[in-house]
Amino acid sequence: MKLTLNRTEFMQELQTVQRAISTKTTIPILTGVKLSLSEKGLTMTGSNADISIETFLSVENEKAQMQIEKTGAIVLQARFFSEIVRRLPESTLTLEVLDNNQVAITSGKANFTVNGLDADSYPHLPVVESQDSIEIPAHVLNKVVSETVFAVSQHESRPILTGVHFVLENQKLLAVATDSHRLSQRVIPLESGETAFNIVIPGKSLTELSRSLTDEEEAIQISIMDNQVLFQTKTMKFYSRLLEGTYPDTNRLIPSSFNTEIEFSVPELLQAIERASLLSHEGRNNIVRLAISEEAVVLYGNSPEIGKVEEDLSFEKVTGDPLEISFNPDYMKAALRAFGDTSIVIRFISAIRPFTLEPTESKGSFIQLITPVRTN
Amino acid sequence: MKLTLNRTEFMQELQTVQRAISTKTTIPILTGVKLSLSEKGLTMTGSNADISIETFLSVENEKAQMQIEKTGAIVLQARFFSEIVRRLPESTLTLEVLDNNQVAITSGKANFTVNGLDADSYPHLPVVESQDSIEIPAHVLNKVVSETVFAVSQHESRPILTGVHFVLENQKLLAVATDSHRLSQRVIPLESGETAFNIVIPGKSLTELSRSLTDEEEAIQISIMDNQVLFQTKTMKFYSRLLEGTYPDTNRLIPSSFNTEIEFSVPELLQAIERASLLSHEGRNNIVRLAISEEAVVLYGNSPEIGKVEEDLSFEKVTGDPLEISFNPDYMKAALRAFGDTSIVIRFISAIRPFTLEPTESKGSFIQLITPVRTN
Repeated sequence: MKLTLNRTEFMQELQTVQRAISTKTTIPILTGVKLSLSEKGLTMTGSNADISIETFLSVENEKAQMQIEKTGAIVLQARFFSEIVRRLPESTLTLEVLDNNQVAITSGKANFTVNGLDADSYPHLPVVESQDSIEIPAHVLNKVVSETVFAVSQHESRPILTGVHFVLENQKLLAVATDSHRLSQRVIPLESGETAFNIVIPGKSLTELSRSLTDEEEAIQISIMDNQVLFQTKTMKFYSRLLEGTYPDTNRLIPSSFNTEIEFSVPELLQAIERASLLSHEGRNNIVRLAISEEAVVLYGNSPEIGKVEEDLSFEKVTGDPLEISFNPDYMKAALRAFGDTSIVIRFISAIRPFTLEPTESKGSFIQLITPVRTN
Repeated sequence: MKLTLNRTEFMQELQTVQRAISTKTTIPILTGVKLSLSEKGLTMTGSNADISIETFLSVENEKAQMQIEKTGAIVLQARFFSEIVRRLPESTLTLEVLDNNQVAITSGKANFTVNGLDADSYPHLPVVESQDSIEIPAHVLNKVVSETVFAVSQHESRPILTGVHFVLENQKLLAVATDSHRLSQRVIPLESGETAFNIVIPGKSLTELSRSLTDEEEAIQISIMDNQVLFQTKTMKFYSRLLEGTYPDTNRLIPSSFNTEIEFSVPELLQAIERASLLSHEGRNNIVRLAISEEAVVLYGNSPEIGKVEEDLSFEKVTGDPLEISFNPDYMKAALRAFGDTSIVIRFISAIRPFTLEPTESKGSFIQLITPVRTN
């Protein structure tokens, strides 16, 4: 293999592939990036136990300035290789595989010779049967991910809850995540034809996917295989394993009748919660208390060592019974950040039942749930 | 004490004082910031074992919008207090000391009540006798610090080497730092009248001082006390303890005759060293090798596991004997960064003797020394 190409373009692809490469893996070859050069262009692959990323740099991409002298393949230690490429002096670089899997990296007067690994020993990626696939714009996918993924469980005690549950049926895509203390559910309409699926994708995979989808306008093709999902753009394939098992029925968790409703501006409520949580974080329980009556809505935070805070909250509308309720402000902060700069309605049943949060304009397409903390 | 003032101006002063406050101190009151309000304005103090910072916000500063209702003093837990102030909703805040050293912090509808400490139990700062003082512009002081402080020792085995040695005599200020592997020395002319001193200031204090001197044009007044130095601006007093003991005679370390001289552009050499150190960092010894002859100057880096690099260096001029010399690239990188974008002359005696680095135009005002590594 011998190839000269543009350093900046190459760096970009390399950075994308690196998202899938962990230095902590127990399989040495997976700390490497696989380079595979054909007459058509350069394919790069990175992989770990959860995700695999494959990019393709076409010889027809003029910015890449590719000069292919000899096709072939090699695996290079990813971290070092990208450090080296990043620091090369010129705008192009030449890669040449020498004997014994050694690779010469040349740019201007700098000559590196690094030890590579045989590309044949790199694991194969799953084979895609593309019959069952849907298309979704990157910005829609990114939004659904950011609205749900924060609510997945961080604990492996119930592995299924570390993923986001995606259900496609009747031209609607439902995404839901819960760690059993809070829940976030988003539904979007989708022109999906006959396709239907019911899968759980690890939260970490989705976070990496979002970081890799930089072109917000691009269409992402989603295909489901046995235990894998493939997200595909023009130049990138992003594979993630699926979580096995049955996701709990979250629909029955969402209440439908309420006794108290209150409407807030999200940015104002978020700031007040952040102030109150300064003190609650120092307390043993990390809870804040909300007291709602027709006259006033007051938020309390408290830490025996540091002090206390109370704040008369601005609200847009309040109806129903007076209520005092305590909750973890970190769940509330994450929920509010997912809504962005909008208005929401929070609906309560009682001090011990989960409460819901929805955009005022949402009509059921986006709903969150937070379980309160019993204080007596 | 009761005071209303502008939140942004107050935050700025608080951040400056916080540089001196450590959460790791074993003296609880030193985790606090002391606020002391007189009819003239607000004095804030922070302190640790090494440095103390005192700022003054004058009632005449219009931006501060100060309304003094009652003078007094209090000590508040610095980290929390600044977190609270940072998150308050309005552009002004009111501080009021209540009974039992409790303090009400109010801004808009947010009301905090935090526990303070009695200001009388806060330690007193050293008293200054301002007779022996000199003045130096902030940008000159910052430059001298940045050109020397990186070379202080990070180890407490010889505490005196963790400081920068400042000698003022004959209207010249000399600053020198060494960790016994490398040395950096700067001399600047100074209109100092009769004042003379010979002190060693801890490197960490100087780093914090530089961060605190934001107005590059301001004149800094430097006064020396028994075991303290005071740097004073219009609104800030920065005290540092001095290191006790005799600083080694570094003058005798700097050689004066050489066998090989070579002139480099700093940015180009720095980039080549960074490339070579990528591999040397992985080797056991972290050394790079420089081979100088009339025909070529070549830099080598090498790691048994990863690979090797060699680079023909661009240079501006070479004279004298051919030479092969090995050194720690990290010392070279730090030295080159201190020179900035300029040309330097590196002068060698032999492969086992320290070599000097000087700006081509320097005429002795700035010199650095690096000890090579013997490889056989």
